[in-house]
Amino acid sequence: MERHFHEQLQELKNRLLEMGARVEKSIDLAIESLVRRDSPEAEKVIQADDIINQFEIEIDDRCLKLLALQQPMAGDLRFITSAMKINNDLERMGDHAVNIAERAVTLNSRPSLKPITELPKMAAIAVSMVRESLNCFVNGDAEKARELCKKDDEVDGYDDRIFHELLTYMTRDKGNVARALDLLMISKNLERIADLSTNIAEEVIFIYKAKTIKHHLNSSDLDDVRSRS
Amino acid sequence: MERHFHEQLQELKNRLLEMGARVEKSIDLAIESLVRRDSPEAEKVIQADDIINQFEIEIDDRCLKLLALQQPMAGDLRFITSAMKINNDLERMGDHAVNIAERAVTLNSRPSLKPITELPKMAAIAVSMVRESLNCFVNGDAEKARELCKKDDEVDGYDDRIFHELLTYMTRDKGNVARALDLLMISKNLERIADLSTNIAEEVIFIYKAKTIKHHLNSSDLDDVRSRS
Repeated sequence: MERHFHEQLQELKNRLLEMGARVEKSIDLAIESLVRRDSPEAEKVIQADDIINQFEIEIDDRCLKLLALQQPMAGDLRFITSAMKINNDLERMGDHAVNIAERAVTLNSRPSLKPITELPKMAAIAVSMVRESLNCFVNGDAEKARELCKKDDEVDGYDDRIFHELLTYMTRDKGNVARALDLLMISKNLERIADLSTNIAEEVIFIYKAKTIKHHLNSSDLDDVRSRS
Repeated sequence: MERHFHEQLQELKNRLLEMGARVEKSIDLAIESLVRRDSPEAEKVIQADDIINQFEIEIDDRCLKLLALQQPMAGDLRFITSAMKINNDLERMGDHAVNIAERAVTLNSRPSLKPITELPKMAAIAVSMVRESLNCFVNGDAEKARELCKKDDEVDGYDDRIFHELLTYMTRDKGNVARALDLLMISKNLERIADLSTNIAEEVIFIYKAKTIKHHLNSSDLDDVRSRS
């Protein structure tokens, strides 16, 4: 039974990693479709979202069954409820990839406003945050998770610079406004993906250190759960 | 023990409702501070976010303890894990209220671009969605939750109209761009709040109908959990 439970936990980790890999791929593809002005590529991202949504349902179900049938304690309990949140975060990232792809389709149908140079760099950091935050979760690496939270500032820096550059385009020529707005929204979507990865990193710290740094407050008394359970 | 458990569940519902009421108030205040150009009001929203964050930590802790100490089955298990997700959604709404308040402070420091007429109407629907979705959760009203999901379209309609109106302002005069962008971002924040309320409504349907309409797919086989547990 115990061994069976740990196999099931491992399977849960594998499914989350698989879902994460799909989300990463969607973000990459969405940005590539923008850079290469390749709308069929963007359409693939929009279609692939169904699979990500199915992953969410399946993983949620898997977690509920583990909770119901195994009645895990302390650390494992925390791990499974965190997996449910992370699952939710990944699904939302998938939605952001779809939003980016939709904006890319719109932008690709019009003349190029400017060469796309900063967004791919910003996306690369955001995607690496998705991957690393999930790895931290699976490997229980709270230290690396803590470092990862700092990476969010880098992404915010890109978002700020992109915002100001696009503002200049908008004020220079009113014909630029609609396209600059679409690019701005892509930047906002990437910024949200980085935020969601930061949430995952915070969950990892929560699980492995049994305290939440989420709002720079100590969790009340989670160890109490362990001692009383 | 059984009675004690149901008292604890009731207490959990009360805490979520209380948190929801605070989130509603923050959204209302943030929009009011914009309409009345009252930045000290906006500062109150920014300060009040700490309390919302503390609510999140406390409610999360409460849910974990219920899971660890009571080892609930089927319906109750589903209720508690959903409460954890809803808790997370409410905290994010609080962050969106803060974002609105920050934009309001920026906008209030500059001459008014236009009378603020549509955003308060949009906000009123979004706030009603927060309240109603939580009521559905507490009262187990899956039918009303299903109706609520449709309200999201109304909010999206506002977002579209506001977007196009602001686009006109931006293309008319480049001096309008920065302020119009701030207003646009406020609209996006309200739209996200409505989305998060829709998530809550979907969770309610999930709990009470034991199937997810989230992605228009049937959940695999949650009843299996009940039958095997």
